[in-house]
Amino acid sequence: MAQKSANISQSQPRNIIIMVGDGMGPAYTSAYRYYKNNPETEEVEQTVFDRLLVGMASTYPAKESGYVTDSAASATALSTGVKSYNGAISVDVNKRKLTTLLEKAKSAGLATGVAVSSQVNHATPAAFLSHNESRKNYVEIAQSYLNTDADVILGGGQRYFSPELISQFTAKGYQHITEFEQLDSVTTPKVLGLFADVQLPWVIDNPDAKHLSTLTKKALSLLNQNPNGFVLLVEGSLIDWAGHSNDIATAMAELDEFAHTIEVVEQFVRQHKDTLMVVTADHNTGGLSVGANDEYAWNPEVLHRVKASPEAIAAQAIASEEWQKIVTDLLGFEPNIQQFSQLTNARMQGNKTLAIALRKIIDTYSNTGWTTLGHTGEDVQVFATGPGAKLFSGHQDNTDIANKIFSLLPKNQ
Amino acid sequence: MAQKSANISQSQPRNIIIMVGDGMGPAYTSAYRYYKNNPETEEVEQTVFDRLLVGMASTYPAKESGYVTDSAASATALSTGVKSYNGAISVDVNKRKLTTLLEKAKSAGLATGVAVSSQVNHATPAAFLSHNESRKNYVEIAQSYLNTDADVILGGGQRYFSPELISQFTAKGYQHITEFEQLDSVTTPKVLGLFADVQLPWVIDNPDAKHLSTLTKKALSLLNQNPNGFVLLVEGSLIDWAGHSNDIATAMAELDEFAHTIEVVEQFVRQHKDTLMVVTADHNTGGLSVGANDEYAWNPEVLHRVKASPEAIAAQAIASEEWQKIVTDLLGFEPNIQQFSQLTNARMQGNKTLAIALRKIIDTYSNTGWTTLGHTGEDVQVFATGPGAKLFSGHQDNTDIANKIFSLLPKNQ
Repeated sequence: MAQKSANISQSQPRNIIIMVGDGMGPAYTSAYRYYKNNPETEEVEQTVFDRLLVGMASTYPAKESGYVTDSAASATALSTGVKSYNGAISVDVNKRKLTTLLEKAKSAGLATGVAVSSQVNHATPAAFLSHNESRKNYVEIAQSYLNTDADVILGGGQRYFSPELISQFTAKGYQHITEFEQLDSVTTPKVLGLFADVQLPWVIDNPDAKHLSTLTKKALSLLNQNPNGFVLLVEGSLIDWAGHSNDIATAMAELDEFAHTIEVVEQFVRQHKDTLMVVTADHNTGGLSVGANDEYAWNPEVLHRVKASPEAIAAQAIASEEWQKIVTDLLGFEPNIQQFSQLTNARMQGNKTLAIALRKIIDTYSNTGWTTLGHTGEDVQVFATGPGAKLFSGHQDNTDIANKIFSLLPKNQ
Repeated sequence: MAQKSANISQSQPRNIIIMVGDGMGPAYTSAYRYYKNNPETEEVEQTVFDRLLVGMASTYPAKESGYVTDSAASATALSTGVKSYNGAISVDVNKRKLTTLLEKAKSAGLATGVAVSSQVNHATPAAFLSHNESRKNYVEIAQSYLNTDADVILGGGQRYFSPELISQFTAKGYQHITEFEQLDSVTTPKVLGLFADVQLPWVIDNPDAKHLSTLTKKALSLLNQNPNGFVLLVEGSLIDWAGHSNDIATAMAELDEFAHTIEVVEQFVRQHKDTLMVVTADHNTGGLSVGANDEYAWNPEVLHRVKASPEAIAAQAIASEEWQKIVTDLLGFEPNIQQFSQLTNARMQGNKTLAIALRKIIDTYSNTGWTTLGHTGEDVQVFATGPGAKLFSGHQDNTDIANKIFSLLPKNQ
C-alpha cells in the first residue's frame, strides 16, 4: 500500500494548487529579479520564479476577441480548458456553461478553495467558482457562490455580500469572518472570509499587515483535512491592478507578496510530496519593459526608497500645505524643480492626476517603460513543481494547462 | 562501433549549431505567432518557436554595466560563459581575452563557422570569432578573423575588408565571394563570403532575394564535411536593427526569415541526429508590446499589407511629387487626412523623419507598442532540439548556455 501510494505520488498528485499572478508577464518576473538583487553581492540572486520555471503559455482569447485577452477569458481558459470571449466567466462563446476545474474536483470528492487579493468574486476566482455571461455581474456571481460547495473562500469583496447572502452562507455551514485575526478561530472548513470592502490593501502601504500569503497558509491547512485531497486556486490579483495604473513601485511590492505566497506553497509541496503546484499568469499588463527611453539601464534601487503607493502619497499631498516635504519623504528622493512644477499643476487637478504624475517621476528615475493602461498579448511563463510538473514543460496554450490538470485529477466515481 | 556512436549521439552531439535572434525577446515570438496566423482557420497555428521552446535565460551584463545588456556583452556571455561589460568582444572586465566557443571547438578538431545577416564583424559574430576591448573596432576585428582559422564566414561587411586583407585571406586558402550566385561554386571550405557593403538587405524590401537561410544551408553543407563535426553560429541580426527603429513590419519580415532559417537547421538535425541546435536571443530590443494604447487588440493583418520598409517608402516618397499615392500603395492602406498632414511635415524634414512618421502610422493601425530605441532587460527564450537539448530546460543565465555547450564539446586531445 505504501509502495502503491509512492508510485501514484510520482505521477498523480493528491492535491493541486494553481496560482495565477494576474498580469504577471515575463517582464514582471525579470524586473523582480533585479528589484530583489542584493547590490552588496557580486552575483545576481535567483528568485523563486527562476527556480520553478518550466515553460510558457499563449493567452489569446476566442477568435471573436482578437489576440489580447482579458482576465475573464483567460481564467475561463485556465479553469475549463476552453477559449471564450473577453468578459466570459466559464461560459463558451455561445454563453453555455463550461465545467470548471473546481467543479470537476468537487465531483471527484476533493475539497476546493480560492484565496485571492482582489474581491473573491473578481474575474479570476469567479471563473473557477462560477459561470456568468459577464464578469461585471458581481452581485450575481457572489450569490452563485452559495451553490459551489467550495470549502474555502478567502479574499476581499464585503460590499458584494449582503447580510441576507451572508446568512444564507452561514446556514449552509460556512463560518463567516472579516478580520485576519479571526483566521485562528477557523479550524475546519467551510469558511467565507472577506477581509476588505473590495480588494485587500496594497502591500506597499501596509508592509506589516497580513496579505495573500497568510490567506494561502490558512487555505492549505483547512483543505488538507480532506483525505481525498484538494484543489486550490490562489491569485496575486493586485499585480495586475498596479500594472493597469503603470505603477512599478506598487507592482513590485505586490509581486514580492505573490513570491512569498509561492514560497509558502512550495514549502507545503516539500512537506506533502503528493502535491502539484502550477503557477502562471493570465496575461501581461501595461506593456512593462525593464528599461526604456533609449537608455540601457533599469534602476530598481529607486523603488525600494518609495514608502507608499503614489495613490496614497497623492492623497496625503492633497490634504496638506506641506505637500512638497511629504512627497519628498514618501518618494524617498527629491524631485527636481521641473518635476515639482509638474506636480504643482497635477495637484490642482486632484488625487488621480497627482498620482499619475508621481508614477511618471518614479518611472523616470527607475527608467521603467509602459505602452498601455490595458493588457498585451505576449506569452506568459509557467512554473511548476510536484508530481506531474513535467507535463507543463515547453510551450503550451493556456487551455492546455487546464487540460493537463484535468488529466491529473482522480477519475470521477 | 555503430552501437557506440548511437549511445554517444543520445548524450553528446557531433555538431552544435547555436542560433541567435538578435533582439528577439518574448514579445517578438508571440507577435510572430499572430502575424503568421491564418485568419481562415479557427485555431491559431503553432510556430517553429512554439515547437522548440525549452526554457528562458537572463541576459544582464557584468555588474558595472547595470541590468540591461548590449549585443557585445551578451554575445561574450554566450560565446565564453563569462559576463563582461557592454561593448566587450570576448574580453573580461579587465580586458583579458576569454576563450570562445569557436576556439574550443577548433582545438577539439571541429570545423567552425558563422552565418549572419549583419556585417560578419558585428558584435555577435565578433564575440564568437575574435577578441577586442570594443565592438566599435570594426577594422581590427575584421583583420583578426585571419587568425581564427574559421572554415565558413558568411554575411555582410565588404567595406571592412580591404583588398589587401582579402588577398591575405585568399593566401590562407579562403575562397572569397561576394554574390549569392557564387555560393554554388563553393564546394569545400574555407570560404569568406561578403554579400553586402554592411548588412544584408531587408527581407521586406527584397522578398525574392536570398537571405540568411540560404547562407545557413551552405554553411551546414560545407561544415558537415569535417568528420569530427562542427560548431556553427547563425545570427538573425536584423531583427534587432528593425527593433532599434521601432519598425514592426520590417522586424516581422526579418523574424520570418530567421524562422525559416531555424527550420532549415531543424531539417538538418532531423537528418543528422547527432546534431544539437540551441536558439536564443541576446536581449530584447525596443520594449515591444503586442498591443498598446489602452486597447485590447493587436492587428498584424495590417503588417502583411505593407510592401516595403518605411525607410524604402520614405526614400521613394521624397523622390516623387506623387508621394501620397506612393505611400498609400506601399503601405497597402490609405492614411487619414490628419496622418497625411503629419507625413507632409515629416517629408520636409527628410528621409529619416518621414520613415519615423510612417512607422508610427503602422504602429497605430497595428496597435503596436514600444518604449525605447534601445534594449530592455527582460529574459529571453531558449529553444533546443537534438542530443543535449534537455540541458537547456527551465531558467538559466546566458553564461550557463555557453557552459552547457562547453560540457557537450568533445574533450580536447
